[in-house]
Amino acid sequence: MKIGIVAPAGRLLPETTERVATLAAERFAGRAELVFHPQCFLSEGHFAGCDAARADAFLEFANDPGFSHLWFARGGYGAGRILDAVLSRLGPAAKAKSYMGYSDGGFLLAALYRAGHAVAHGPIPHDIRRAGGDAAVARALGWMIDRDRSALEPSLDGKTPAAAFNLTILSMLIGTPWMPDLAGHVLMIEEVSEHLYAIDRLMLHITANTGIRRVAGIRQGRMSDIPENDPPFGETPEEIVRGWCARTGIAWLGMADIGHDAGNKVVPFGV
Amino acid sequence: MKIGIVAPAGRLLPETTERVATLAAERFAGRAELVFHPQCFLSEGHFAGCDAARADAFLEFANDPGFSHLWFARGGYGAGRILDAVLSRLGPAAKAKSYMGYSDGGFLLAALYRAGHAVAHGPIPHDIRRAGGDAAVARALGWMIDRDRSALEPSLDGKTPAAAFNLTILSMLIGTPWMPDLAGHVLMIEEVSEHLYAIDRLMLHITANTGIRRVAGIRQGRMSDIPENDPPFGETPEEIVRGWCARTGIAWLGMADIGHDAGNKVVPFGV
Repeated sequence: MKIGIVAPAGRLLPETTERVATLAAERFAGRAELVFHPQCFLSEGHFAGCDAARADAFLEFANDPGFSHLWFARGGYGAGRILDAVLSRLGPAAKAKSYMGYSDGGFLLAALYRAGHAVAHGPIPHDIRRAGGDAAVARALGWMIDRDRSALEPSLDGKTPAAAFNLTILSMLIGTPWMPDLAGHVLMIEEVSEHLYAIDRLMLHITANTGIRRVAGIRQGRMSDIPENDPPFGETPEEIVRGWCARTGIAWLGMADIGHDAGNKVVPFGV
Repeated sequence: MKIGIVAPAGRLLPETTERVATLAAERFAGRAELVFHPQCFLSEGHFAGCDAARADAFLEFANDPGFSHLWFARGGYGAGRILDAVLSRLGPAAKAKSYMGYSDGGFLLAALYRAGHAVAHGPIPHDIRRAGGDAAVARALGWMIDRDRSALEPSLDGKTPAAAFNLTILSMLIGTPWMPDLAGHVLMIEEVSEHLYAIDRLMLHITANTGIRRVAGIRQGRMSDIPENDPPFGETPEEIVRGWCARTGIAWLGMADIGHDAGNKVVPFGV
């Protein structure tokens, strides 16, 4: 099995690559080969190379039947800028593989899922830099290589379709041609480094959309590293999310074991 | 003429009220009475009173035929939370007046314009706290009281319909039932305190929407207090906005004299 790694947003650091490759060799020896596309290390302003370089690398691996999985190296910002270029040039081999990422990678998860591809929200190579990040990377590899079910978000029941997003990225997808139909899905959301007032505004935005109103319900992932609100907002993240669900008639289904942290579990989209 | 002031988002400080009332008395003596609703000074967490208190105050003044104008005291965050309550209870007197605000007030400008009300993007009472803020507040009053055309954004031609928004607020309106039809409008956008990568992402979002693609073009207001991007983003705000216009076939029409500053000019929506 070959797993291809490309960087649709920010660039990888070479030492990250070494740590991920070493972990894969030690724990999954001989069962999978990790191939880091050289584009992962390009640098152009905010991005791992210009839009064309990032789209070309993505397409080179996506359209290569030798790869079973495409793994997004890192989040940040940039995946949304290559969606149209990627979607217009995906060939048959792209349908025969699965894609994993999260955070900014949600732009690609959404657009690929809408186009009928197999995608999963889950840890990425850059996560190895977190405290406990080895476990996150091993979890992603365990799902891709062995379909290890212990990697999965525990509320997934195998019957109800699911999807997971960073809340900001989901908000940026609302009203665009890349937004998939999430009717009947359990929608999991997580957030990082946003003020409580901004989380409330994002919830206002997504729950006002008629498409989001048709989800089976919302599960709340972790909302971490929240900057201080001035004045104090007066509600916790859970109160905010439950409040918007109650106001808009969306079922609040409880917590989800996802977030911008080493504990982030895998959520394959769909069933 | 009576101008009613309510606070759909954050609360007013009493000394702000005094300064605005003094300026109005000195410069527009006898031609208008400013009435600050007591709700402006309520405090509940982030907001000038709970959602019901803010909606009720808004409706009390909007539905009172004694007021010619309703002026939003301050931005921040909160107007979006009262839209449904306000829209469902506006009576005939609400159609016979005009509404002015900006920033977070854009939620109300959008929803009221969509519902056929006269709205304008322009300075608010809280602006008197800025350096040069007297001029901003006098400009808003000059438009409301005297229809002083020197208050208007200078590119307005009186023939092409226009609308103006804070970019973040416009993004939060995309895909919601509050978004007005801006086909054929000159769309002016301004932003404050957002990173360049976030401005780029907001432009990605709004220009991907089919409704926004039908505007006559985009004029770019000021984008101020931009935090440092790490790594450097590599484009200026103008390059970002022009780039998204070029990629999506929207005409870039030049700069607009609006922004989160004392120079912010008035943009009545429509013609």
